[in-house]
Amino acid sequence: MRETWVVGAASNRFGKMKDSGREAATRVALAALRSSGLAPKDIGYTFVSNCFGIAEHQAHVGPLINGGLGIPDVPSCTIESACSSSSAGLHEAFVHVAGGFVDAALVIGSEKLSHLDTLAATSYFAIAADYPFETKNGATFPGLYATLATAYQATFPTRPEMLGAVAIKNHANAARNPHAHFQKEITMGTYLHSPIIASPLRLYDCCPFSDGAAAVVVAAKEFVKSPVSEPLVIRASARAGSITEMQDRPDLLGLPATRTAAAKAFRQAHLEPKDIDFLEVHDCFTIAEVLALEDLGFFPQGTAAPAALEGVTARDGRLPVNPSGGLKAKGHPVSATGASQVVEIFEQFNGRAPGREVPRTETALAHNVGATGGSCSVHIFSRR
Amino acid sequence: MRETWVVGAASNRFGKMKDSGREAATRVALAALRSSGLAPKDIGYTFVSNCFGIAEHQAHVGPLINGGLGIPDVPSCTIESACSSSSAGLHEAFVHVAGGFVDAALVIGSEKLSHLDTLAATSYFAIAADYPFETKNGATFPGLYATLATAYQATFPTRPEMLGAVAIKNHANAARNPHAHFQKEITMGTYLHSPIIASPLRLYDCCPFSDGAAAVVVAAKEFVKSPVSEPLVIRASARAGSITEMQDRPDLLGLPATRTAAAKAFRQAHLEPKDIDFLEVHDCFTIAEVLALEDLGFFPQGTAAPAALEGVTARDGRLPVNPSGGLKAKGHPVSATGASQVVEIFEQFNGRAPGREVPRTETALAHNVGATGGSCSVHIFSRR
Repeated sequence: MRETWVVGAASNRFGKMKDSGREAATRVALAALRSSGLAPKDIGYTFVSNCFGIAEHQAHVGPLINGGLGIPDVPSCTIESACSSSSAGLHEAFVHVAGGFVDAALVIGSEKLSHLDTLAATSYFAIAADYPFETKNGATFPGLYATLATAYQATFPTRPEMLGAVAIKNHANAARNPHAHFQKEITMGTYLHSPIIASPLRLYDCCPFSDGAAAVVVAAKEFVKSPVSEPLVIRASARAGSITEMQDRPDLLGLPATRTAAAKAFRQAHLEPKDIDFLEVHDCFTIAEVLALEDLGFFPQGTAAPAALEGVTARDGRLPVNPSGGLKAKGHPVSATGASQVVEIFEQFNGRAPGREVPRTETALAHNVGATGGSCSVHIFSRR
Repeated sequence: MRETWVVGAASNRFGKMKDSGREAATRVALAALRSSGLAPKDIGYTFVSNCFGIAEHQAHVGPLINGGLGIPDVPSCTIESACSSSSAGLHEAFVHVAGGFVDAALVIGSEKLSHLDTLAATSYFAIAADYPFETKNGATFPGLYATLATAYQATFPTRPEMLGAVAIKNHANAARNPHAHFQKEITMGTYLHSPIIASPLRLYDCCPFSDGAAAVVVAAKEFVKSPVSEPLVIRASARAGSITEMQDRPDLLGLPATRTAAAKAFRQAHLEPKDIDFLEVHDCFTIAEVLALEDLGFFPQGTAAPAALEGVTARDGRLPVNPSGGLKAKGHPVSATGASQVVEIFEQFNGRAPGREVPRTETALAHNVGATGGSCSVHIFSRR
């Protein structure tokens, strides 16, 4: 297996795009290529994620993007794994490059839903749940994650301020991230007075619908030789699934797919949680960040929520989590989210995160979940 | 790179399914596993294609299928490349297995659209074209392929009976295929008297909308050791793209992506067209089969249409093409089509195609196109 690097990464500003999904995808791909020093002609495969392309009447978007990049002959496909789509695309890129099938690959995620009304957008999001058993019976993602939060609160003493601390931290980080949808801080008062969306989750526990696009360039060490940016060595690229329907799971105190993917990833990287300097994790709701940190093995069960309130996961804490602002405040353009986690790690490694630097950037982990954990991807990166 | 085999394959009957897409996918996956002698627990990755899952309110279908197979922990993702989706999935499975990342993988394509009216189904199909430049201006696939047929007829002398011969041959083959949507022969009279859909294409030049599902099990030779069915050795798995918009192509006398993918595939397999015993090619319209045979290098330009009329491509001809009946008559459940081409080759290699056997089954080629050729996959198989 060849040593495989992330050599470039770029994101637009999440929120509301004027560009179509394909235009935004093409632009971020070009920006990612510029940051890598590679040219479009170096790319051997393009993995695009664009879950809601149908809202723009567009599937089969890879050839359109490659055409825009001037490499129409290069093969492409679209990869979907709900909210973890472009992390699944990153895994494919890793396998192709590490396995020696191509020397470099593009991973692109792009999403545009802001031209739809909220009800239509909600319907699109809901297709990632189990239709006959969940969606058809009225379940939506706020409700499903509220169920997880309820189970957590019923087992571990959890004050509302603990989930609030996750939201406040991530907003504080996003306020320093030019790619973020919400570039504003919030206070505990704002959090505690925000309306309940699905009890116990409040407005500020929930990530927004965002438009956005992000791209990552993956290449073999032996192909790149002299990278123009500091590369991320992909030490692990691991994925796992789990029973999708929450009613069929043995317990609700975590996501089984995260545990399985994390075990694989740490084994692959020959590393342990204590070796990781900072994390980007899937925080579609604040409770998701808490569960992620416990499932990944960074905190014993029941302790990640209080840790947020104690500042452990703050940007200058012992274990910075979501310095980008996370899905919660950077925003969640579904297909772009996985790639954008890598953008944050790339910018941190390269000293291009002014105002939101984390103290140590030797190693980092990206964790991304599909829906309520039917899928999970864990990637571990280190410096050369 | 490890020698990689197709060790199992199965299809349901194309046409109209009572099952949902996910149910059908799970059933064909189990049937494919049975034909392989492997158990679900042997599978390391599942690649699902289900382009129009949204018509069933369902994305992120891989974890649901893996749950149904009893392997919920196994990672999955959905792969889309328009009509070539499950061939793109097969390529991913090949890369994962040949590269040593997993020992065995499932490729599944499933599609259900028959619960929609024709207009809605047409709208779903149309999203694979270029929306701002084609679809939005009224282009549909019959019209786009009619443009290709018009260009062909304007350059090479093509009697209507030549395209008719493609349709008649494929219906004759499908009449002997229990998986086929249309299990009936047609005559030249039926063809010539069928209505014009998009001049010069008539009703019988066009493939139908079909529901259907097909699955393929891919595994490393060293993992399987004693296969229970005769495996297909994957000698080449090649993909390519091309400019999607027909108005931007240098000529309309073929699909550039087929030419690029074919060149890669023959190079990879160290074979030439003369070494191939029979083919499954993408014949969404009769003209597509003609172009495929010329672009793949089996016939000089302008000669594949008369060859069909001369019987060269018949099941008992010099070069049998689409013994399954092809998209034209076996049917075209978009995401299942690529996998179902492999099912036909698997059944031919294993003597499980009674009544439609081709004379020689040492080598075969599968060719699958996305939309009007924005993507193309070519796979070459041989016996051990």
